[in-house]
Amino acid sequence: MKNTRTDLASEAREVLQESTESTTELCGVSAEDSETEGFRVSRVRILDEEGAKTLGKPVGSYTTVELQGISRRDVDAFPRAIRAVTKELKALLPENCDCVLVAGLGNRRITPDAIGSSAISHIMVTRHLVDTLPEVFGKMRPVSAVAPGVLGMTGVESSEIIKGVIKSVSPDCIIVIDALASMRLERLCKTVQITDTGIIPGSGVGNSRSAINKKTMGIPVIAMGVPTVVNIATIIEGFAENSGIEIPKSALNDYSERLLVTPKDIDVHIADMGRILGYAINCAMHEGITIEEMDEFLS
Amino acid sequence: MKNTRTDLASEAREVLQESTESTTELCGVSAEDSETEGFRVSRVRILDEEGAKTLGKPVGSYTTVELQGISRRDVDAFPRAIRAVTKELKALLPENCDCVLVAGLGNRRITPDAIGSSAISHIMVTRHLVDTLPEVFGKMRPVSAVAPGVLGMTGVESSEIIKGVIKSVSPDCIIVIDALASMRLERLCKTVQITDTGIIPGSGVGNSRSAINKKTMGIPVIAMGVPTVVNIATIIEGFAENSGIEIPKSALNDYSERLLVTPKDIDVHIADMGRILGYAINCAMHEGITIEEMDEFLS
Amino acid sequence: MKNTRTDLASEAREVLQESTESTTELCGVSAEDSETEGFRVSRVRILDEEGAKTLGKPVGSYTTVELQGISRRDVDAFPRAIRAVTKELKALLPENCDCVLVAGLGNRRITPDAIGSSAISHIMVTRHLVDTLPEVFGKMRPVSAVAPGVLGMTGVESSEIIKGVIKSVSPDCIIVIDALASMRLERLCKTVQITDTGIIPGSGVGNSRSAINKKTMGIPVIAMGVPTVVNIATIIEGFAENSGIEIPKSALNDYSERLLVTPKDIDVHIADMGRILGYAINCAMHEGITIEEMDEFLS
Amino acid sequence: MKNTRTDLASEAREVLQESTESTTELCGVSAEDSETEGFRVSRVRILDEEGAKTLGKPVGSYTTVELQGISRRDVDAFPRAIRAVTKELKALLPENCDCVLVAGLGNRRITPDAIGSSAISHIMVTRHLVDTLPEVFGKMRPVSAVAPGVLGMTGVESSEIIKGVIKSVSPDCIIVIDALASMRLERLCKTVQITDTGIIPGSGVGNSRSAINKKTMGIPVIAMGVPTVVNIATIIEGFAENSGIEIPKSALNDYSERLLVTPKDIDVHIADMGRILGYAINCAMHEGITIEEMDEFLS
Repeated sequence: MKNTRTDLASEAREVLQESTESTTELCGVSAEDSETEGFRVSRVRILDEEGAKTLGKPVGSYTTVELQGISRRDVDAFPRAIRAVTKELKALLPENCDCVLVAGLGNRRITPDAIGSSAISHIMVTRHLVDTLPEVFGKMRPVSAVAPGVLGMTGVESSEIIKGVIKSVSPDCIIVIDALASMRLERLCKTVQITDTGIIPGSGVGNSRSAINKKTMGIPVIAMGVPTVVNIATIIEGFAENSGIEIPKSALNDYSERLLVTPKDIDVHIADMGRILGYAINCAMHEGITIEEMDEFLS
Repeated sequence: MKNTRTDLASEAREVLQESTESTTELCGVSAEDSETEGFRVSRVRILDEEGAKTLGKPVGSYTTVELQGISRRDVDAFPRAIRAVTKELKALLPENCDCVLVAGLGNRRITPDAIGSSAISHIMVTRHLVDTLPEVFGKMRPVSAVAPGVLGMTGVESSEIIKGVIKSVSPDCIIVIDALASMRLERLCKTVQITDTGIIPGSGVGNSRSAINKKTMGIPVIAMGVPTVVNIATIIEGFAENSGIEIPKSALNDYSERLLVTPKDIDVHIADMGRILGYAINCAMHEGITIEEMDEFLS
Repeated sequence: MKNTRTDLASEAREVLQESTESTTELCGVSAEDSETEGFRVSRVRILDEEGAKTLGKPVGSYTTVELQGISRRDVDAFPRAIRAVTKELKALLPENCDCVLVAGLGNRRITPDAIGSSAISHIMVTRHLVDTLPEVFGKMRPVSAVAPGVLGMTGVESSEIIKGVIKSVSPDCIIVIDALASMRLERLCKTVQITDTGIIPGSGVGNSRSAINKKTMGIPVIAMGVPTVVNIATIIEGFAENSGIEIPKSALNDYSERLLVTPKDIDVHIADMGRILGYAINCAMHEGITIEEMDEFLS
Repeated sequence: MKNTRTDLASEAREVLQESTESTTELCGVSAEDSETEGFRVSRVRILDEEGAKTLGKPVGSYTTVELQGISRRDVDAFPRAIRAVTKELKALLPENCDCVLVAGLGNRRITPDAIGSSAISHIMVTRHLVDTLPEVFGKMRPVSAVAPGVLGMTGVESSEIIKGVIKSVSPDCIIVIDALASMRLERLCKTVQITDTGIIPGSGVGNSRSAINKKTMGIPVIAMGVPTVVNIATIIEGFAENSGIEIPKSALNDYSERLLVTPKDIDVHIADMGRILGYAINCAMHEGITIEEMDEFLS
């Protein structure tokens, strides 16, 4: 059974277990919950093709950090969130990942699709400085960052542009950032999924279907995503289920194709989460860097 | 019965008549359908307090132009749309409306709420030129334009800012532009409502509740709005109704408070409709001006 | 002698003293140099009309903080710069200045003129929260913020818009932020002038000439400015002087009217200085607030 | 003698002839003046290495169209300008140039450097539509468009990104758009240079020095540029020359390295010229398309 309504592996698993009322583990899937810096962390591993089929996601590791409290502006929430995401990102980054290309996907003109370009604006780009200013930046890892834009504005798939840039830049690894879809309203804009399986851009908002992963790119691809939209069909089905009625699939699909459901204060969320993702990537790449130093480098 | 799910008077009337299966006219409401430049035009007049109560909107005139075909890029669709909106706008503009202040409401950082600031960017602002360059602009009407921003970013209600600017500029009339909510998906981003009753900003996307109308401003207020969002409760209720089930109001309200439902290609729609509104206002103010002349003035 | 090439009173004084080779004080002008947080601070007071005529600026206090080191990203430079500007701003803010309106002047589409709108984006706007969320914000001062835009885009002078907003908001004091002109390249984008004499917008980049000060607004006006442009005539005259030649004034004026001279990396400077100004205003208004808390409120 | 102060071949030639008071042709350079659509057109051809050395530009063809009248908003100026640029662009485009990649260079955050990204926003991107909607777009040529950003924000040279995209997209030809430097104030923002020699990005505003031409890209490169800045050294030298004095080079170079000189109303010029370049490229690629059709496609 493939679940296309959520891009979060932990949510797909959760939904599936609820629906099967199963208490035993799913075949080919391992899962573990823990806590990092006070935030709930779920680590789902899809171990084989059976697990992949079950959850409708490729084989690999999926870590979800639930950043509850960010939008309540809890004391110290930002630094803690950055530390938590940094830690989980480092756990999935390949060894010897020295030179990294960060790609911010999505359309910056559509607010819930702008998470990639928001995150990119917080990346400390160092690739061009490492050589030209070795006395200052010589110890930093070379990081570069691109925002490939969307098919409708460029005429080129994001995956094609990134593939091209890889040929020029020869990074060891790519980190791609994109908007995702979730089935749970309470997770919208409050959750980060980090996975070593790459991404099919546009699951969240857009429509592109060209994968960016190790197979297509030739190097490891870490995808970081934030659910910023929920499929309207999910909400309607929830109501229908509670009322014990059947909904014609076709009507739901039509809505899902055409409509975007997102929080009302999406602009604030995008700014918040973009900064957290960008700063976490900086921390993962540049050992020991502080928030203050990033503020100064980036402002 | 007040219908808060649609900001369109013609739609409120339509929904009401459907629900009452009434073929007779509603008390205190007159309505007329016609065609302008090939587009369907509805003119609803709320004649008295009974009509106002029935439709949940203030007494006054509401004209709706349905710009079907814009997004299909029909031949000549833009010039026709501009002509149609111009004509209907002129029919509602007060006589002797020489000096006009145009106010683009909403939050330009949230795409479906950016229609006001999009329209403003297409307004030919002439107030400062009429006096300083009388040989070129002396025959034009003085038009000024402001984007008051949103409460969360300024700390001041849009209505307060506009009231202040009126004191400085002393216009004869205000035209305010804002995003609206509709109950019909097929009207989203394809319809313009023009009314002489002013507006309560943020019905569509935001939350502000301070009216901008003749009573609060002291001068006539024409409001032009485009539905860019649909209330999620509307969609769910539609399903529920078809299935003959009851939905708890509280759950719906909670969703409606927190979520925004909008078309997936909202950025293109906002650009399209913003240009049509802006150009129609220019045509209404500056007799005989051509699209080409506006392009040159504004580009 | 009026010096129109610099908006900095300390620079006007310096230039004048150089040219007169005077070691004695100018009549009607007092000046004092000191250091705050490691940055050089000049405090010039124009005491009477004679001093005003001499320096070509209105009677009042002018504090200049020279933020050398920001663009070299010195350790701790940002927090120190924010503390220094906060301290000097507080020294000029009137007593009992409870409710403040911050106005960011200039044209955000022209990079060196965007300092006002950059600073505004870093202001913690609280006016609407103090009443609605008293349990959280009740102890904060009510701050509001507007970006009035420029005459060419609105048709209304910035001073007229601000005057209008004052009538609606009734602040105790206004803080206006704008780009300035300097005569010294080494001060460009590295200096903040704070004055209690208000401002004539557009001295730096624009052309508007309508003053915003206590006399025109009816309440105290603190102006904060950053020199982001240098008059090209200044540079040419410098060369001419060194070579002992005469330059026809008319040619210089023509250039000055039409051209803008600004640093090549102006975008980075505007972002840096906008953040410093915004954060310093926040610190001056909200006693004890930390950079981290501002980051969280604003991100 | 290499002239690095102007990126316009016609201007380099003009300056050289003035300085040598020569009436005969320069060796290895042919030049011809004519008129297209009422605008002055200069066609300079650098025929051999001697000509290249003389003018300090590579061998190839350079066409300059002087769009005087645009900023005076002369009647019909825009459509005429678009037709003139289209005609000259088509004259330089290689035969059988079916699939084109347009690259908008420069930094959109610095107004005079934003001409490339402004032009890109007016390009009709069709590459992805030709195949997916053949019934509508099947007869159009496949056009794609990228804005590679600047080295400081991406860590990657524009030339590297474009080279990568070429590998993915396989265009027949590239059109690159960038800001240039001119020596004549009266040409700033009023002139388009089209050349088949490609470009070294950042001559105008930026600092990158990695060429984009047929040799580095492997396919023909047409460069379209608009002078948006003037070197301050040029202005000072002009004054010096008139006064018969010597200027130390080092001082001039230091200024030139650090400062940007641009018209005060640069934002309007960038919008104007970006639209003209974009529309001219559309007209050159899509035979018979009208301004109205482009407005509708792009708005």
